[in-house]
This record gives sequence, structure tokens and C-alpha cells, in this order.
Amino acid sequence: MAKLWQKNYDLDALIEKFTVGEDYRLDNNIIAADCVASVAHAAMLSKIGILTQKEFEDLKKELIAIINDDAAGKFQIDLHDEDGHTAIENRLVNKTGDAGKKIHTGRSRNDQVIAAVRLYARDYLLELIQAGTALAGTCLAFAEKHKDVPMPGRTHMQIAMPSSVGLWAAAFAEEILDDLTLAFTAYELNDMCPLGSAASYGVPLPLDREMVSDSMGFAKLQNNVLYVNNSRGKMESIILDAAEQMVLTLSKMAQDLILFSMPEFGYWSIPAQLCSGSSIMPQKKNPCGLELIRAKASTVSAAVIHIKGIIKALPTGYNRDFQETKGAFIRGANTALDCVRVMEHTMNRLTVNRENLARGFIPEIYATDRALELVSGGMPFRDAYKEVGLHLDELSNMDPGTVIAAKKHTGATGNLCLNKAQAQLETFEKTLEQKRNRIEQAFKKLLGSRPVLFRSLK
Amino acid sequence: MAKLWQKNYDLDALIEKFTVGEDYRLDNNIIAADCVASVAHAAMLSKIGILTQKEFEDLKKELIAIINDDAAGKFQIDLHDEDGHTAIENRLVNKTGDAGKKIHTGRSRNDQVIAAVRLYARDYLLELIQAGTALAGTCLAFAEKHKDVPMPGRTHMQIAMPSSVGLWAAAFAEEILDDLTLAFTAYELNDMCPLGSAASYGVPLPLDREMVSDSMGFAKLQNNVLYVNNSRGKMESIILDAAEQMVLTLSKMAQDLILFSMPEFGYWSIPAQLCSGSSIMPQKKNPCGLELIRAKASTVSAAVIHIKGIIKALPTGYNRDFQETKGAFIRGANTALDCVRVMEHTMNRLTVNRENLARGFIPEIYATDRALELVSGGMPFRDAYKEVGLHLDELSNMDPGTVIAAKKHTGATGNLCLNKAQAQLETFEKTLEQKRNRIEQAFKKLLGSRPVLFRSLK
Amino acid sequence: MAKLWQKNYDLDALIEKFTVGEDYRLDNNIIAADCVASVAHAAMLSKIGILTQKEFEDLKKELIAIINDDAAGKFQIDLHDEDGHTAIENRLVNKTGDAGKKIHTGRSRNDQVIAAVRLYARDYLLELIQAGTALAGTCLAFAEKHKDVPMPGRTHMQIAMPSSVGLWAAAFAEEILDDLTLAFTAYELNDMCPLGSAASYGVPLPLDREMVSDSMGFAKLQNNVLYVNNSRGKMESIILDAAEQMVLTLSKMAQDLILFSMPEFGYWSIPAQLCSGSSIMPQKKNPCGLELIRAKASTVSAAVIHIKGIIKALPTGYNRDFQETKGAFIRGANTALDCVRVMEHTMNRLTVNRENLARGFIPEIYATDRALELVSGGMPFRDAYKEVGLHLDELSNMDPGTVIAAKKHTGATGNLCLNKAQAQLETFEKTLEQKRNRIEQAFKKLLGSRPVLFRSLK
Amino acid sequence: MAKLWQKNYDLDALIEKFTVGEDYRLDNNIIAADCVASVAHAAMLSKIGILTQKEFEDLKKELIAIINDDAAGKFQIDLHDEDGHTAIENRLVNKTGDAGKKIHTGRSRNDQVIAAVRLYARDYLLELIQAGTALAGTCLAFAEKHKDVPMPGRTHMQIAMPSSVGLWAAAFAEEILDDLTLAFTAYELNDMCPLGSAASYGVPLPLDREMVSDSMGFAKLQNNVLYVNNSRGKMESIILDAAEQMVLTLSKMAQDLILFSMPEFGYWSIPAQLCSGSSIMPQKKNPCGLELIRAKASTVSAAVIHIKGIIKALPTGYNRDFQETKGAFIRGANTALDCVRVMEHTMNRLTVNRENLARGFIPEIYATDRALELVSGGMPFRDAYKEVGLHLDELSNMDPGTVIAAKKHTGATGNLCLNKAQAQLETFEKTLEQKRNRIEQAFKKLLGSRPVLFRSLK
Repeated sequence: MAKLWQKNYDLDALIEKFTVGEDYRLDNNIIAADCVASVAHAAMLSKIGILTQKEFEDLKKELIAIINDDAAGKFQIDLHDEDGHTAIENRLVNKTGDAGKKIHTGRSRNDQVIAAVRLYARDYLLELIQAGTALAGTCLAFAEKHKDVPMPGRTHMQIAMPSSVGLWAAAFAEEILDDLTLAFTAYELNDMCPLGSAASYGVPLPLDREMVSDSMGFAKLQNNVLYVNNSRGKMESIILDAAEQMVLTLSKMAQDLILFSMPEFGYWSIPAQLCSGSSIMPQKKNPCGLELIRAKASTVSAAVIHIKGIIKALPTGYNRDFQETKGAFIRGANTALDCVRVMEHTMNRLTVNRENLARGFIPEIYATDRALELVSGGMPFRDAYKEVGLHLDELSNMDPGTVIAAKKHTGATGNLCLNKAQAQLETFEKTLEQKRNRIEQAFKKLLGSRPVLFRSLK
Repeated sequence: MAKLWQKNYDLDALIEKFTVGEDYRLDNNIIAADCVASVAHAAMLSKIGILTQKEFEDLKKELIAIINDDAAGKFQIDLHDEDGHTAIENRLVNKTGDAGKKIHTGRSRNDQVIAAVRLYARDYLLELIQAGTALAGTCLAFAEKHKDVPMPGRTHMQIAMPSSVGLWAAAFAEEILDDLTLAFTAYELNDMCPLGSAASYGVPLPLDREMVSDSMGFAKLQNNVLYVNNSRGKMESIILDAAEQMVLTLSKMAQDLILFSMPEFGYWSIPAQLCSGSSIMPQKKNPCGLELIRAKASTVSAAVIHIKGIIKALPTGYNRDFQETKGAFIRGANTALDCVRVMEHTMNRLTVNRENLARGFIPEIYATDRALELVSGGMPFRDAYKEVGLHLDELSNMDPGTVIAAKKHTGATGNLCLNKAQAQLETFEKTLEQKRNRIEQAFKKLLGSRPVLFRSLK
Repeated sequence: MAKLWQKNYDLDALIEKFTVGEDYRLDNNIIAADCVASVAHAAMLSKIGILTQKEFEDLKKELIAIINDDAAGKFQIDLHDEDGHTAIENRLVNKTGDAGKKIHTGRSRNDQVIAAVRLYARDYLLELIQAGTALAGTCLAFAEKHKDVPMPGRTHMQIAMPSSVGLWAAAFAEEILDDLTLAFTAYELNDMCPLGSAASYGVPLPLDREMVSDSMGFAKLQNNVLYVNNSRGKMESIILDAAEQMVLTLSKMAQDLILFSMPEFGYWSIPAQLCSGSSIMPQKKNPCGLELIRAKASTVSAAVIHIKGIIKALPTGYNRDFQETKGAFIRGANTALDCVRVMEHTMNRLTVNRENLARGFIPEIYATDRALELVSGGMPFRDAYKEVGLHLDELSNMDPGTVIAAKKHTGATGNLCLNKAQAQLETFEKTLEQKRNRIEQAFKKLLGSRPVLFRSLK
Repeated sequence: MAKLWQKNYDLDALIEKFTVGEDYRLDNNIIAADCVASVAHAAMLSKIGILTQKEFEDLKKELIAIINDDAAGKFQIDLHDEDGHTAIENRLVNKTGDAGKKIHTGRSRNDQVIAAVRLYARDYLLELIQAGTALAGTCLAFAEKHKDVPMPGRTHMQIAMPSSVGLWAAAFAEEILDDLTLAFTAYELNDMCPLGSAASYGVPLPLDREMVSDSMGFAKLQNNVLYVNNSRGKMESIILDAAEQMVLTLSKMAQDLILFSMPEFGYWSIPAQLCSGSSIMPQKKNPCGLELIRAKASTVSAAVIHIKGIIKALPTGYNRDFQETKGAFIRGANTALDCVRVMEHTMNRLTVNRENLARGFIPEIYATDRALELVSGGMPFRDAYKEVGLHLDELSNMDPGTVIAAKKHTGATGNLCLNKAQAQLETFEKTLEQKRNRIEQAFKKLLGSRPVLFRSLK
């Protein structure tokens, strides 16, 4: 099919292949979102008299048909279409005639792709937040179950002080909850409707931008039409910044899980079904899922850096450079979500080996507890510290369970205060539910159904 | 002086120099914060009976003396001190005897440095948010003043559609306000008191962690003692992520300002006092401040990447790797703040040249407006688009002022809706004021004064 | 089909999907390379008596059949195959029976994938170097053609001193030649045969590793079997470091080309066939190819960072993390090559507009030349500089052609010394030819033909 | 003192502080290099008649005096000087009058700073290569000493196959040698004299650029005057790319050293003198040097990214952005060198614990050896693999020493071929010596002595 801008010459073949790049494949991810935004735009054009009611109905019907075709894997974009927006407009023109030729009134592909990515990202964030709350919940349950299981605490990877499996797991629950705070902020910033910005400079038509925004359940309209374009890539990088913090948390967790499942520790076991083997070594059960989570933290980081590198110091207004942010965003976002889900799946199947954990309790682990005993007897801490430090060979074993129970101040092994994280988790779940409902109601009113705008990459 | 952990051997000289690194210089930035946290910790130790009232008073007096010395540039840390925490403890022992030897009861340098950095970062964020709101305000005033000044709008850096200086400036105002949302979220996450985590595993003492947190005006306590250590570097990277979004906004703004002050455009002029000259070319007036803002976006980005690279896949608990985050954070944070201030200073002094702006209005800039005229006459947009595109030589000039005024929908050149950004700005200013007050009240109660915990790098 | 390591349980479905990731698609890029390495390995196994001559012949025949199927797009890897190595072994077992079951003797997938990627990368580098020399040649020809065309020289993007289009183009020719030096070093390091390392620890078999290396035309054997595995990701990042320097050069070149094709400059024109249009603005001809080159510099940079982030601080020996380097490498490498080719294509079609270039010669561009006239009259430079600087309004126009011709020292506008770059270019072309020949001879001996091991991504 | 370009107005104070940044401190690193380049430039100006012989002698004498003052820590640059170049010119004018005012004839600070950084970087690379060869030598000696000490080989951090301490150490020796190949290429590219490019556009004076280049012992002249400026930042990033590969190697080595010195392994011991203690835990001996090496790999990576981020898509010619590359380069370069030295220092003091290493040899480590025994009996490998895999409990212990000795093919545990790396090391040492001599001879001729142009940061 023809490009939208095609006039009286053909684009050079090498340049066509280069500029289209992977867009014609990547855009499969945002076809449904683009159709939803197109229905909203068309409804508004009909209200302001650009489209007749009949034209709007025809467009809406065909756009819903495309959504359905896409869900069934039957909507294909061709290299010569250039991108999904063109493929959609070409089909609309083909099926609805003049209505299709009118739908682009008052918009550009610039604000169209921004709208589609924002809808896609909104549904993505709902999934990410849901997966994150599930993981936090799993960690909290794991912490509750193992709150009394002693575990050698380390600093510098060396033996430090007595700790517990519960403290370890709860630390990650709290960290993930903080990561979710970032995800909610990203959600809030992303939840602005860009449509009506056209090519960044508006149009001399009485577009009702608020109507369009409300009809898709956006929390607000993104006001300044130039800012709309300037925020391309920015919003994607803000979302990935949040996702990156989550995978950084997971990378630490994965490292601990890999490290302490080495046979010399054996603190926990990952079921064989979650491990891969080797092509040459018959005995191997490798924690590949966790290793890949560790590696994929760099994948998400690279995606963030990629996008920020592109937008840095770009002049205002649309520049084709933005196109290159799409693949980075889609891949980075999917990677983060996969990691969260796989970690939750793994944590849910992890078994803890008390005996192996107990073996790490060598006398020196109690050195600080011993020094604090001396403090209780009145010795200044620094003196007690030196006293113990110069007589390490006199340290004797204590009972790990008693020692971890003795740390009773807030947040310590003897007093994890899991209820605090639990309460925050429930608040997050409620907020998530409200956001889902708001969108569902808007979409049902606009389209009669709630299409899924984010699907994991195959 | 001696290291805190020194017992019966000396550290290898090469390793000492390498492991201390620049800490003994960087820690000058957090001496005051460390002293504040030490007073709060000592007050609590006194309450739970580790310190006598007299010991606490002695410590408090000396810690305030150190804060004053530091403010006067008279507190020096030595390479052999290893770091600021040691320098402070050594002085306390020297001046207060046993009280000094007791102050480290129930804490480690790990949670001590986290506390100090968090206090430093909190004051930093107050400054960054203040500078950001000032810049947003300047952009809004600039937009209001130049809302009717036509400016060629561009996409792909080529002539696109009529725009205005007001639209341009307001776009940045709105973007900076969104950046500030991120800064507030970073503030919220940073506003947790870490003290009482000790070496990540708590202590068998009845530490009143809530008292310590409240006494420094923190919004809440960071609960899990292992999470406290796991969040080192994380919090710094979250803050810098927010700061980075701000400098990315500035990099775009700087690029526009540099580009359109080239003599071939001359849209605006930067006063000579803000420009540097050349050592060889007598005529040069170079926009060096703006060029450096453009470059320094990469500086902040690199600092973020630096920190995230360090924390990725580190096992839980303290690892010495964390030390390397300090310089990156301090330098990155300062760089971002400097850039915001310099941009505000520059925008405040920029003059706009209407005639030069008018010269960019060549007939093709009106092509879209012409196509939409045809649409008003009933032609479908895609047909109108092709009609104009095939007869570009028939385009004639219009009046730029009339054309930009005609875009009256929300957020367009004829209807910038500056009041919306203004309202958000005022909300932010109020929130900032409340946060300042909360801290001031806590510090006055704890110390009798409100020491400044963030100072720009010299 | 079954996984190579499959024994008596099935891999969890979520973990399977996550750990296989895109490998089953990405591996299409290295099927041919894997088959070549497998033939070389099998030939050696036959020599040391693990395979009979007949078994070797059967395997060779089938591996060549796979190469041909792959070239015809008919070799598919399935998700359940896990990766291309498994798909190949499964087919070999299927077609050759015991021979297929023996081919993995003395190797692991670890050294197999390293060998395949190295062969792929070697052919890639040949293409990159060829594209780079072509671009350098085009720039040199462009410089020769336009050596007398004056162009305003700039610093800080402001008018600086008279320059020429020839100087501009030749600067890039020289820079690309330096980039090619890095590509040749990357080639040298990559040109080591890894086979025989097995799982990093060798095998108790008399493998003739030198034979394998020579048979594929490698310059040398990579000696230490553990280093083989430790170099995974490393080699890829070294190659991409070289490619990145090339795209950084192109990003600067693209920026100049975009900037000075703005209508306010119009120094050169990009033919319409190389430009894309807008969906809304009928008049647009956008330099999209160049904008994407600018953006894709960040794509290659991100790929480098991605890989380095993965390998940083990984313990020795194979870790599954390495798998995640594959996509980054393949995508980054392809992106860089595409950019070089598109830039060469564009430079070959660029037209220069002398009149527009001449318009930039305002009097102040001659300020330094005037100061140096005063120096010729005996005035110290610093005095001359100030004299001119305080009387800029007295500067008058000179003849640009005369002024640029007057700079006759080496490398200046009047004496570009293009012959030096030309000579280096020819040396590079000869070296490239030698490398191609060496491989061709080895492959013809081993396989009877020279399969193409690198194909651009579709 | 005054700025070089100062005319009839003062620079705004905020802008002055911002644009000068840390230059006035950083430039202390390149004062000596700048003076050397200035003597070379002055000698040439004297030859072409711009300076009298007397003026040249005066300048040379004063420049040598500055070099000596700088070596003694007595040459200070002031904020108002802007940078070191200005501080030097101001002093020359002050001491030599008109000669000082003439020295800037035919150069700009742009090519001056490039020349100084290149000289600094050349001496830096000599140090880095020397430290790298020393480390490679230490690793080779360590490998030779421990070539028969069995060590559990791992993949996925799990027990894989028998290995040796010798194989482990030799792997790093070979990797560092490959890293040094990159450092030599960086040296070659850096070894070009930029002087005579002036502000990128040359000057109408008969500068003898070859004379200047030869007099400083450069291998060649950088020809194109615009390319000189375009290569700012580029050369720095090429050098740091090489240094980064070296620290990435070290990060892996450090991770192994930290990991296997955990008490559960205890493969090796780091002497207490190389370890730091804890402020709270009396027993701690932490491998802080190694942890910081691991962290500092990210520091060097961040410096590379920083510089590449700055130069990406900058228009040609000098832009002030380049200034921001200086700190990143100096800090990144120093960090890498420190890490190499500390690693060499540590490896030299490491003790190996045979008994602890032996404990890791559990039966499953011999699974592959057992499968290959079955292969020797005629069973196809894939069948042997399954046979062993389904009967892992039947595996019995073997003698580790015998098993590692049995891997006799090239590069395996029984045949490390250390002589190959040793030969390459000696070639590198010879090349290094030649490069040192070339510079020493040139400098003695030019200056009568060989000033040190690179000093480690304090």
C-alpha cells in the first residue's frame, strides 16, 4: 500500500528499508491501542462536525474489527506501509472511503503514536504493578513462614552477625514496595492524553481535547501541544526508570539465591523443574532463570540509557530519532515484567534447608553480640569492641535462635513488623483496582468492551 | 589518628590509599549531616540508658561545635582517619572521653553514612525543587510575555507550522513541572530514617528507632534493618534519576537556545556578559553556559549509570562497593542543581528578536493551514493534503499573528492555558514550604538551630 | 524435539519460555557458522578416531545440507529445541544416527556458541570494514571535488573562521580511517579459534585444537580453555566498541548534514528520494535517514553498555547471563553496519549549494585573519587580538576563496594532503582482501565452498 | 589575572563559576604537558621567524621553570585564570613581555588542550601498559607455581568439572594480554600531534607542523585541522575503552577472589594487612581492595559513557561541551591504573589453601570424565551422557590430580602452554621500552630533560 505522504516520487529502496526499520513489526504491539485512540478521536471529530454520525459509526465498526483481527493475529503490517498508523488508515480508506480519508483531520502520526504508546504503557504498568504486588506478597508470606529460621548475616560477603531468612525475605518485600511507588508515579505522569497536539503546533479547528482524554479514561489532558512531542521518549524513560529499579532489586535477590544455592552453602534449593541442564555435563542443574534475571537487569538498564541517549539535546518538536525509542521501550518493558513474574514463580517454589543454614554459625558471628554484652556490663562500646577483637579465639557458640530473637527493636530479626509492609501492599492493590476500573468503564462506554492493549512479546 | 577498627597490625599503605580513595575529601560534604544524626542517636542512647544525661550533653555540645567548625571550613579529615565518621568519633573521644567511646553503641558506619547521605540528600532535594520551581516560574513569565510572538515551528528541524515563543517557553514550564513530580517522589522515598539498622542485622538493645526518626523530622522510619543497607546506592540513583530527567529537559532547551542564537536565525540574544570569548578569534561571543548545560546532561546520566552499575547484582548486606557511589552521587547532584540555576539565570536575561523570528515565515509553513481550509470547504483531509502537496508553489504568505491566534483549542498557540501550570507551580511551592518547616521545627528542637546540610561544591 | 540435557523430568513452562527467550529466533543468524565449526570439529574427531571416516562424511554432508537450507530460509528452530545447537544436533541424530550422537564429543554448547559467534563476527567485520573503506573513499572524493568551495567555519556553532567543504569532508575521511584501525584490532582479537575448550575445563581426549583452528582459517588458537569462556561477551563488546566509534563519527556527520540543510543555511541538499514526508504537513521533506543515523549511535552505544553490564563481575566460567549478550551484539552490529552504508549512500547523492555557503561569510569571520595580518606587521599576537576585538565594526569582507587558499600549512584548507588518507585507505583495502582470501581458501578446502556467515537482519 | 579573551566587559559571576567549573583544578594535571607543547610550538615559531631566537630562549626558560614549579606543587591556577593555558600565558607575558604575547600565534586553546591531553595520555598509557604487563607476569608466575593444584571448576557457579588454580590464573594472564593489545592500539591512535590546527581551520602562516610533531617524539602528525578538533573526546574514549576492558577483566578476577575467600570455600587467603575492619564487628577482615576494584569497573565504564554521551551528535568544530570530557577522562584513567596496580599487589600476596580446594571435589564433578570413559569404550557421547545422567548416584571419587593431568590438549589443565603468554608478554615489554626511549630522546633534545607528564591523582 502507499505511504500517507506519498506524492509524485518513490522513496529510495535502501532509505525505505533503513527508515522503516523494525517499525512494521514493532507496531503490532500498538495496533489495538492506536485503534482505541482513533475511535476516541473520530468520536470527537463527529461531535465538532468534521465527520457525520454515519462516517463515525463506519470508522468505529472498522476500527473494532481491526482490534479483533489483531487479537487473532490476523492484522499484518507491510514494509511498504511504513508503520501501523498507515496500515490502519489505508484499511479505513479501503473500507469506508471518505470517512477514512477524514480521520487524520487534526492529528499527525506524531501525536497518534504518542497516544498509542501511552495507552500501551498504561496497560503495561497495570501488569507490572500487579506482578510487583504479587511478588511483594510472596516475599512477605515467605518471610512470615521463615521468620524464625536463623541465617548467617554477612557484610563484604564475610560472616557478620546472626540474621534470619525472614529478615532477608522481608527486606526484598519492602524494597519492591518502594519500587512500586516509583511505578505509580510513572503511571501518574503517563496518564495524560496527548491527542490534539497534531504536529506539535495545534490546528485551527475547535478540537475538544478534553472529550478525547475523558473518553479513554485518562486522568488528565497533556496541555501544551509542543510539550506533547517533547515528552516522547521522556515518558518511556520515566517508566523504564521505575522498571529498572525493580529489576535492580531482583538482580540482588537473584545473586543471593544463586550464591546460597551453591553446594558449599545449600541454604535453599530450587526445584529441578526450574533448572536447565548442560549439553556436556550430565549432572548439572543450573539456576538459569535466576542467572537470566541477573543479566536482564542490564538489559533494562541498557534500554533506559538507549532512550535517554536519543532524547538528550534533541531540538524541540518531532525528530525522526524518536522512532528509535520504540523498540527499546517495548523490549525493556517486557523484559522487566518477565523478570518480576519469573522471580515470583521461583520464590513460590523455593525450599529452605535449615541444617545447611545452621552450619554457617561459626563463633566469630557472635563477636558483636559479645561486645554488646560487655557494654551491658558498663564498658564503653569502643573498649568492648577492642577487647573482643583482640580475643576472637575466646568467642564461643551461642544459640542462633535465641540471638536473633533478642533483637527486638523495630525492623530487627526479633521484630520484623511485617504488618507495615502488608498494609502498604493492600493500599497498592486497592489503588490498582481503582485504576483498572476507571479504564474499564471508559472503554466500555467508548467501545462496548475492554480490549487488552498490552500483550507480552512472543 | 587511628582507624576505628585498628587492632594489632597496620594496613598496607597502597591498600590504605586505594580504599580510602577520595572519601576523606568527599566526606566534608556530609560532616554536618553526620553530626546531626549523631546528636539524634545520642539523645536516644541517653533515653535508653546507655549514655548518662551528662554524657549526652557533652556529646551534643561537641557535635554542634564540629558543625560550626565545618561551616567555617575548619574541620579537616585526614587520609589516616579513613573517613569523616572516624574523624568525628576520634574528636569526640578526644574531647569527651568515655562518652565518645559510647556513641557508636548500636550503630555501624554503614547506617551512619546512610543517615548522613539521606539528610544531605533531603536538603539537596529542597534546593533542587526550589531551583526547579524558580525556573518553571521564569519560563511561565517568559511565555506570558511572548505569547503573541510568532516563531517558526519545526519538525525534523525543517519548517513545519506556525508557532509562538510563548508556546515554546510554556512547553518547558510544563515539562519541568513534571520533572518536579519525580523529584517529590524521590524526596518521599528518601525521607526515611535508616538509623538503628547497625550492620544490617540490628542489635540486642532496646533502640527507640522511632524517636530518632522523629527527632530529625523524617516522615517515617525505614523498617527492615537489612533493607536499610540494601537501599544504599538505590536511593541515590532514584534521586539522580529525577535530577537527570530535569537536565535532559534542560539539554533540549539549551540546544534550542544555542541553535536559534546562531546568526542565521538570531531568534534571541544572550547578553555578552553570559558569553565567553576565544583565545584566538577576537570576535567570538560563545554561549558556553548553554553548551555546558548540554554537556552536563551526560554528566548526570553518567553518574546515574555509575551508581546503578555498582549496585547491580551485589549480594545483600553492606559491601565496600557502596563507597564508590558517594562521589558519583555528590557530583551528579551538584551538577544538576548548577544547571537548573544557570538556565534560570540565562532565561531571565534572554532577549527576543521579533524581526528575525518573522523572517522564518516562508510560504510552505502555511501548507497545513491551507489544507485545513480545504477541509473546512468539505474536502476530506487526505485529499486536501495531496492537493496542497502537489501545488506547493501556489502557497502564499499569511499573517503569522492571525494564524497562531486561530489555534484556539486547549494548549495551542491561541490558548496556552498558562494558568494550569501556574496553579501546579503554586501547589509545589506550598508543599516545599511545608517540608522546609517540618525539618526546621525538628532541628530547632533537637539542636537549637537549623544547620545547612547541603552546600554546593566549590 | 528434546533438549540435549533432557533426562527424566520436564522443564517448567514459564521457565522454559523465559530461559529460551529469543534464542530460538536469534540463532538463525549463526546456524551457518555453527555448521561450519561443526564440520571442522567432526573432521578433527575423525582424525583422532572418535568418528569413522564414514561417520564424518555423513555428518559433513548433512551439515552442508543445513547450511543450504538455512540460506534458503528453510531451517527453523523451535522453542522446544531451546537453541540452534540443539536443533542441529537433533537433525544430525535424526539423519545420521550414532554419528550425530558422537559429534558433541569433546565440546560443549559453550565453546560451540563462542565459535559460531566468532565466525559470524569475523564475516561481519569484513563487511563493516568494507563499508567503512567505501565511506572513507566517498568522503575523500567529495573532498577533492569540493576542496575549493568556501564554507563558514564554526566553533560553538557560531561563525569562527573561513573553511571549506573539502576540509569538512576530508576530516570525516580521516576520522573513519582511524575508526577502521580499531575495527582491524577487533578483527585481530576475534580471529582466535575457541574450540576444544569444552565446558571451560578441557577434556581427557587428544583433541587437535590447532587443526580445527587452521581448518577454519583462524589466525591463531585461543589457548587457555577457561579464558575461552571468560572471553564471551568481551569479544563482542570489543567489536562493538569499534563499531560504536564509527557511528559516533557518523552521528557528528549526520548532525552537520541535518543542521546545514535547514532552509536558513541550505549549504547542501539531500535528494527528495532520500527524504520522507509527513502525514499531516503536505510540504515536508525530512532527512529521516540522517536523523536515524544520529539516533542509532545511541542504539549501538546501548548495545555496548548492555554487554559490558552483563559481564562485569561475573564469576569465571560459563554463566547463563552470557546468553543475554547475543541479541545485543547482533542488533548492535547490524545497526552500525546499516548506518555506515546509508551514510555512504547519502554522501554519494548530496549536492552542494555554493551560493548559500557564500552567504555565511560575514565580516567577523575574517577577524582572526585580520589579527594575523597585524602580526605579520610585527605586532605581538595578543595585542593584535585585542586591537581587532575592540574594533570589530571596522572589519571588512575579504574574498573567501583567497583566504582559504592562503592557509597552506599541512592539513589546512589550502593544503588538504588528501593523498595521505588515500594511501592509508588503499593499505586497508589490501589487508581486507588478504583476510578474505585466507578464509575463502580455508573454507573451500574444508567444505568445497565459501558460505556466507553474516547476513544483515531482515 | 585576566582571561585571554577579556576585552571591555566582565563575565557574569555565576556564569564564570559554572563555565570554569573544576578546570582550574583539573588543569594541574596537564600543566607540564602544556609547557612541553608550548616549547615545541615556540621553537617552531622561532624557526619561521615569528619569534626571535632570544624570545624563544626566554620562553623556553620560563616554561621549564613552570614545569619545575609544577613538579614541586608550586604552580597554582586561579578561578579567574579560567584554565591552565591562561595561567601559563599570563605568567609568560609577565616574565617575558612581548615574547609571551606572541606565543599564542598560530594556535588556539583548542589545539593546545588537545596537545596537552595527548601528551598526558601518552605517558598515562605507558604506565597503564607497564602495570598491565606486571600483572600479567604475576598471574603467569602464580599459574606456574600452582599449575598442579586442583580446584573445582564451575559453570553457573555450580560444580562442573575438575580444574586447577594454574588454569584459573593463566586465563587472566591471557586476558590481560589481549587487553594490552587494545591499549597499544589506543596508544597508536593517540600518538598523533594535533598542533597547528588552531581553531580547527588553520592559519595563514607557514607553520611547520611536522617539526613540532617530531620534536615531541610523536609517531605522526594528525593531518586535517578540523579532524583535530573533532577528535577531542574521541581519543579519550578510545583510551578509556581499552582501560575499561582491563578493569572488566579485573572485576571478574576480583569477584572470584572475594567469592572463594568466603569461609565456606577458603580457597585462598588475603593477608590481614590488605583487609579493612568494621566499626562495629570486632572480627571482620574485609577484602575491601577487591570490592573496590569490582565497584570501580563501573567507575571506568561510567567515564567512558560520559564522554561518548557528550560527543555524540555534536556539530563539527570546537564546542564548549568538550571541556566536560576532561574530568571524566582524568578520573577514569586514574581509576583504571590504580585498580591494575592494586590487583597486582594483591595477587603477589595471595596464599593458596590446598586442603580447602580439595574439599570441593564431590563425586558429581567427575560426571563428564566418566561419560568420556564410556565414549572411550565405544559408546556415542550422547548415549554416554544420558547413561551417566540417569545414574549420578553411582559416581565415585577419582584423584583430582590425576584427572586434571589427563587433560593434555593445548590450553587444558594438563598442558597450560604458559610459554605462549610469556613470549607475548616479553614482546610487549620490548615495545614499551622502545616507545619510552623514543620519547625520552625527543624530550632531551627539546628540553634537556624528560619531565613526567602523568602523575597519579592525589
